[in-house]
Amino acid sequence: MARVVVNVMPKAEILDPQGQAVHRALGRIGVNGVTDVRQGKRFELEVADSVTDEELQRVAETLLTNTVIEDFVVVREEEA
Amino acid sequence: MARVVVNVMPKAEILDPQGQAVHRALGRIGVNGVTDVRQGKRFELEVADSVTDEELQRVAETLLTNTVIEDFVVVREEEA
Repeated sequence: MARVVVNVMPKAEILDPQGQAVHRALGRIGVNGVTDVRQGKRFELEVADSVTDEELQRVAETLLTNTVIEDFVVVREEEA
Repeated sequence: MARVVVNVMPKAEILDPQGQAVHRALGRIGVNGVTDVRQGKRFELEVADSVTDEELQRVAETLLTNTVIEDFVVVREEEA
């Protein structure tokens, strides 16, 4: 078994209203010095060792990401 | 400037209907061997070096996480 993480973020050229809302709220809690906030998704998958990188790419592309507006990264985190 | 990532995931004891929906869909695209899927959020912040770890904790706790149902991790990723 391995832990696989898929990070899905809005593409750089896409407006991110959720991230902007967080950014505007920072002043209210007195935090200065944050110049940008982007909000995306994080998926944690527990996968058998038989699952290939190609299958993981397919899962990320087909089920987890809207590739028109989002980019994804698949990270295999071997478990202890 | 540094990139800071905040990962927000549903607590282990909390049901995760979004993750479960993804899990059920895996069979449809012919991928077997994934035993669990959890969906959370990933925030990417660009912060000045003056921003302290305490401030980042406060941002994560106050603005990014619903601490009743979610856990968060703050990761500083120094940039090149």
